[in-house]
Amino acid sequence: MIVEGLVTTVDLDGKINVAPMGPIVEDDFHQIILRPFQPSTTFNNLAATRCGVFHVVDQVDVIAKAAIGKLSEVPPLEAARQIQGFVLQNCCRWFEFVVREVDASEARSRMPCTVIYSGQRRPFLGFNRARHAVLEAAIIATRVHLIPWDEIENTFRFLASAVSKTGGTAELDAFEMLRMFVWSKKEATT
Amino acid sequence: MIVEGLVTTVDLDGKINVAPMGPIVEDDFHQIILRPFQPSTTFNNLAATRCGVFHVVDQVDVIAKAAIGKLSEVPPLEAARQIQGFVLQNCCRWFEFVVREVDASEARSRMPCTVIYSGQRRPFLGFNRARHAVLEAAIIATRVHLIPWDEIENTFRFLASAVSKTGGTAELDAFEMLRMFVWSKKEATT
Repeated sequence: MIVEGLVTTVDLDGKINVAPMGPIVEDDFHQIILRPFQPSTTFNNLAATRCGVFHVVDQVDVIAKAAIGKLSEVPPLEAARQIQGFVLQNCCRWFEFVVREVDASEARSRMPCTVIYSGQRRPFLGFNRARHAVLEAAIIATRVHLIPWDEIENTFRFLASAVSKTGGTAELDAFEMLRMFVWSKKEATT
Repeated sequence: MIVEGLVTTVDLDGKINVAPMGPIVEDDFHQIILRPFQPSTTFNNLAATRCGVFHVVDQVDVIAKAAIGKLSEVPPLEAARQIQGFVLQNCCRWFEFVVREVDASEARSRMPCTVIYSGQRRPFLGFNRARHAVLEAAIIATRVHLIPWDEIENTFRFLASAVSKTGGTAELDAFEMLRMFVWSKKEATT
C-alpha cells in the first residue's frame, strides 16, 4: 500500500528539507520503502545521513506548496526522538526511520527503511474529496510535461468539482495555486 | 468540511442499515449535519428514531458495496454506548449522534445532529490515492444517469491509474466491481 505524506530530511550541514513522498508501507508501518528521484534534495540527504522522518498528514497545503517549489518557510518542527532529524508539529502520525540500503541504479531510487520510533499527534480527519483532489492536482503539477493538455484540462475540471463541493478555504486556495502553476507551465510551452 | 464515511441506523423494528454518508462536520465532530436523500432507508430510520452512528473509515470495500446495493451482509457490529444503535467494529473513529431537527422540505434532507459520544479504534492509514479513487468511482456509480458517458469513461481512466499504482487487492477488487456495475448501467440504457 502506498501512503502519500511528507518526509523531513537533513543535509550534512544540518539544513532541513520538507518534501512530499509516497512510500510503500509494509507491515503496519514497521517497514517503509522510500523512492526519491535522482537528483533531489531528499535523495541526496537520505543517501548521506541514512535517516529521516515520514509523516502521515491530513492537510494538503504543505504538500501542494512543496510539490511546486513554493514552500517558502519550513513549517514548525520539533526534534525527533530517536534519530538526528525533525518532526512536523502539524501531522497525524510520524515515523522516524533509518535507511537500510540505497539502490540508486535507476532514476527513481529505492530505499528500504526500518521505522525505529513512531508517534501520534491527532486523528486523521477522514476521507475528504477536496483534499484528495488537491493531492491529485499536486501530482499532475509535477508531471505537466508528461501529460497531454486535454487530459490535464479534463482532470482539473473533475477535481475542481470535488474541491468546491467538499472543501474549505484551505483546499480552495491550494487548488487555485496549483491550477495557476499548471496553466503558467502550459503558457510557457506554447 | 465534508467527511465521507458510513452511517448505521436502525428502524422501529430494530433492523440495521449501513449506508455511505458525507455529513458536514463542524466544530471538530461535535456537530454534524447529515443530508440523506428522500426516499432512503437512512432518511426513514433517522426521521423515526432520531439517532445513529457516523463512522470515519479508511477502507472502501463497504462503502463501494453499499453504494451500489451489494452489501449482502451487515459487517460485524457492537452496541453503541449512549444511543440505541450499532458501531461498526472495523472503523477508525465513531460518533454516536442524536438528530436535533429534520428539514425534509427538499429531496436532499438536512438533519443537524449533536454528537453525544465518540470513540477511536485505530489510526486512519493516511492519504492513499487508490482508496480515494474507489470512493470517487462509487459516487459516480450512484450518478450514472446524470453524467455524460464520455465524462464517465475519461474519469474512470484517470481513477484506474491511481488504483493500479497505489492500491492493494481490496482496492483493485472494489474498483473492478464498480466499473462492471457502471458499464452494466450503460448497456442497460443503450
